[in-house]
Amino acid sequence: TQQLLPRWTQHVRPFRVTDSDRSIKKGIMAGDLRDLQNKVMDVFHMNCVSAVVLDEDGTGVDTEEFFQTLKDNTVLMVLRKGQKWTPQQRHLPGQM
Amino acid sequence: TQQLLPRWTQHVRPFRVTDSDRSIKKGIMAGDLRDLQNKVMDVFHMNCVSAVVLDEDGTGVDTEEFFQTLKDNTVLMVLRKGQKWTPQQRHLPGQM
Repeated sequence: TQQLLPRWTQHVRPFRVTDSDRSIKKGIMAGDLRDLQNKVMDVFHMNCVSAVVLDEDGTGVDTEEFFQTLKDNTVLMVLRKGQKWTPQQRHLPGQM
Repeated sequence: TQQLLPRWTQHVRPFRVTDSDRSIKKGIMAGDLRDLQNKVMDVFHMNCVSAVVLDEDGTGVDTEEFFQTLKDNTVLMVLRKGQKWTPQQRHLPGQM
C-alpha cells in the first residue's frame, strides 16, 4: 500500500522556519508543503500563511514539486499578508 | 518507450525565476524551456514572454539546448516586451 502514496508523504523532513524579521526560528518537521504551512500556523500563531519563501534569496515556495526539491534543514521564511522578504544583513561588515 | 522521448522531458528540474525588477522570485519546476515559459506566464500573469535571461549576467536563454545545460536552481529573469536586464546591486557595499 505504501507504493500508492505520493512519494513525499513517505518522507517527513526537517526544515528551519523563521518569521519575517528573523527574530524567531523553529525546527519543523514536514512531509509536504501543506503540512508545513499547517504546522507553521500552529507554531507561529498565525491564522493564515501568505507566503513561504527561501530565507537565502526570497524565492517563493508555492508548489509541492518545488518544495520537494529542497534539502533537509533548508531555512524558510514565513510571511503574513503585507510582509515582504528582505535580504539578510550578514556578509556586509562595517555597514551595521 | 522512454528511449523515444527527448532527454529533457525526463527531467523536471527546479529553477528560480524573477521579474525584471527582482521584486518577485518564484521556484518553478520545468522540464524544458517551453514548459518554463508556459509556467512563467501563469505564475507572473503574463500574456507572453519576451525573453528569458540569466539573472547573473543577462545572457539570453533562447534555445532548448542551452537551457538544458543550466544547473538546477539557476536564477532566471523573465522579461516582458520593452523590459531590459540590469545588473544586481548587491555586493557593492558603500554604494547602497
